[in-house]
Amino acid sequence: MTQKTPPLSGVLEAALYVDDLDAAKGFYGDVLGLEKITEVAGRHVFYRAGETVVLLFIAEQTRVPTTNAKLPVPPHGADGAGHLCFAADGEALIGWRDRLESAGVAIEADFEWPNGARSIYVRDPAGNSIEFAEPKLWA
Amino acid sequence: MTQKTPPLSGVLEAALYVDDLDAAKGFYGDVLGLEKITEVAGRHVFYRAGETVVLLFIAEQTRVPTTNAKLPVPPHGADGAGHLCFAADGEALIGWRDRLESAGVAIEADFEWPNGARSIYVRDPAGNSIEFAEPKLWA
Repeated sequence: MTQKTPPLSGVLEAALYVDDLDAAKGFYGDVLGLEKITEVAGRHVFYRAGETVVLLFIAEQTRVPTTNAKLPVPPHGADGAGHLCFAADGEALIGWRDRLESAGVAIEADFEWPNGARSIYVRDPAGNSIEFAEPKLWA
Repeated sequence: MTQKTPPLSGVLEAALYVDDLDAAKGFYGDVLGLEKITEVAGRHVFYRAGETVVLLFIAEQTRVPTTNAKLPVPPHGADGAGHLCFAADGEALIGWRDRLESAGVAIEADFEWPNGARSIYVRDPAGNSIEFAEPKLWA
């Protein structure tokens, strides 16, 4: 391992696993208002969030090895509650709390970290822990 | 749900679950060269990747509800192979293939999507599917 590390510009895709794509679309598309990029019925739906793409997969489908020799995407798939955090500034977080509550999404936690950054936590319909936090949390 | 959608600036944190933090540090820290932000022995290690933070957790620890009333972070945790994709341009991908191979990381797949974007896939030590792809994949 002699080479210098090539550049990585950040995370391009973050994945979560869900059990119901329609329910996932209601949350990520309708409540969060993310732009849908593409969808394969029964398998996945992808959304754009800033420079990152959020991939929502049905794990029992993505664990099946592909037979497409031209696009040999490796299998993957997890069970249980995953975690994803969206970046939103302090003013936006006030709006997000209202938006989520008016959509009937329970607020599981809402607090400030020692450095003053606020985080709001909810569950997506599959039970994944979804956070909305001020980027200064990691500044 | 009458309010307008507040702004989200993108994904701030993407999480994966691992079974061995030392092995994870060897991959994400030493091979990928990501900047370590913080670590709690036996529980998690966090790295910076551009504007996003990559969270690597031991699921059996993060499933335990916290007793810290001031920082009531909700529990989460998943089993099985997750997925994460890092953004790297075409020239960087040439370097990444060399870097990964010279570190003894097997290349599981390396191909071009119909739009010409190249993706390279490997496994992290926990078996998560880690992709390096040109951002034009989703342009």
